[in-house]
Amino acid sequence: MRSPIEIVNSMIGKDYFSQWLGIEVLEIKQGFCKLQMTIREDMLNGFGIAHGEITFSFADSALAFASNSYGQKSVSIETSISHTVSLIENDTIIAECFEEHCSNKIGVYTVKIYKSLDLAVVALFKGTVYRTSKIW
Amino acid sequence: MRSPIEIVNSMIGKDYFSQWLGIEVLEIKQGFCKLQMTIREDMLNGFGIAHGEITFSFADSALAFASNSYGQKSVSIETSISHTVSLIENDTIIAECFEEHCSNKIGVYTVKIYKSLDLAVVALFKGTVYRTSKIW
Amino acid sequence: MRSPIEIVNSMIGKDYFSQWLGIEVLEIKQGFCKLQMTIREDMLNGFGIAHGEITFSFADSALAFASNSYGQKSVSIETSISHTVSLIENDTIIAECFEEHCSNKIGVYTVKIYKSLDLAVVALFKGTVYRTSKIW
Amino acid sequence: MRSPIEIVNSMIGKDYFSQWLGIEVLEIKQGFCKLQMTIREDMLNGFGIAHGEITFSFADSALAFASNSYGQKSVSIETSISHTVSLIENDTIIAECFEEHCSNKIGVYTVKIYKSLDLAVVALFKGTVYRTSKIW
Repeated sequence: MRSPIEIVNSMIGKDYFSQWLGIEVLEIKQGFCKLQMTIREDMLNGFGIAHGEITFSFADSALAFASNSYGQKSVSIETSISHTVSLIENDTIIAECFEEHCSNKIGVYTVKIYKSLDLAVVALFKGTVYRTSKIW
Repeated sequence: MRSPIEIVNSMIGKDYFSQWLGIEVLEIKQGFCKLQMTIREDMLNGFGIAHGEITFSFADSALAFASNSYGQKSVSIETSISHTVSLIENDTIIAECFEEHCSNKIGVYTVKIYKSLDLAVVALFKGTVYRTSKIW
Repeated sequence: MRSPIEIVNSMIGKDYFSQWLGIEVLEIKQGFCKLQMTIREDMLNGFGIAHGEITFSFADSALAFASNSYGQKSVSIETSISHTVSLIENDTIIAECFEEHCSNKIGVYTVKIYKSLDLAVVALFKGTVYRTSKIW
Repeated sequence: MRSPIEIVNSMIGKDYFSQWLGIEVLEIKQGFCKLQMTIREDMLNGFGIAHGEITFSFADSALAFASNSYGQKSVSIETSISHTVSLIENDTIIAECFEEHCSNKIGVYTVKIYKSLDLAVVALFKGTVYRTSKIW
């Protein structure tokens, strides 16, 4: 069985989005991860603020890393995100993914995204995964 | 007041994600849009299927275009997506965004994403926007 | 195997909430149902409008009936509702539940709730169920 | 301006659902509340477990109490719940509602429901409210 960090590195290695976002793994263990990234100019929309897709993708990566960390391949069934604060260029943000529940087939996770500067919460994400029988 | 297609072109022009996704606008009118894109190899994850972030970003773009089409700037408050069918390279998908409700301040939209080949639904998205007083 | 209407009658027979809501089944078939109910005074909150819980419970019942209609017991994993229009006493509302996806283990459904009088959409609901191996 | 506990008592006084659920307020302050209730036989469905509507209504009440506690009337726009563990008769459950974000017009809250016996999380809820200009 591979370790959580080996699994995550393998996932990032094949993941254009995570690479493009510039995701840095601060911490990873079974059922948890903490990630960091910084908003760049090419992540802004026509309002001069970051696309909701940026924070969603960041949270979704956190979900993928935390839920696959046991070595059992997990796929997202349902996810939702609430945006609370706008992000501008050079904002550095942190995502923490927590496992709220994990049964044989289903896992439920929450992700909190906040600014590293003032810890202001910028988005809340909830995700449900289906745990397949395939292993990494 | 600018027309829906002028607003969408302006949004896409400043939107790296929409450009990278290769989004094509098939139809746009007030409160509705229909978009198309094709899954590329660099959109796949470690399982060889498209990231959930791809379909989310596609749906989120549809939401942005349909909800901003009146000329009043709208920002997403809450969105959720359910993934039902996996997508592989070369799958062409269509997103249709419907306005379910539109009041002075709040709009609610659903987006259905399906394969153009067999019309199989691959994702369902629901989004709530806050309609600001700023105009395009 | 029992028929959809037998299953639903059995579900309602043991369901205080559905009975209290006064739910009437207008139509039921595999993967679909159409229900009706009327808002009563004891369903109003302190604002004089119906609780969000009323429309949620109505939608959740529609989900349960439609997803269990095949004879395989299904349990809700994740549900969400967007409220768009307030309901007052004596409003009659209709819920239609549509199956958007159904695989071996997972089903995804949407429910649209609208007023019978003017067809105004009052709530949009999305639900994901886990299909157990138990049968009715 | 009325105090949080005065507002909540006024809300419960007009709320059949909260009364029927047997909700007890353990703690209430601006932007936060902690509630308790116990599952009764008439809250069970045909599977012998509590309806998802019970935990939803419990969480929705927590959202209503916490978000209205400032004295400004707030109405729910969008809510979602993930069910993780089944509840049976006599289970006592606790809901804690946390304010994740509060701006002039929009508030975002999470509610965690867990068993009082072993603290097992049974449901996760996320709610977005629109803060009206009306006061209690």
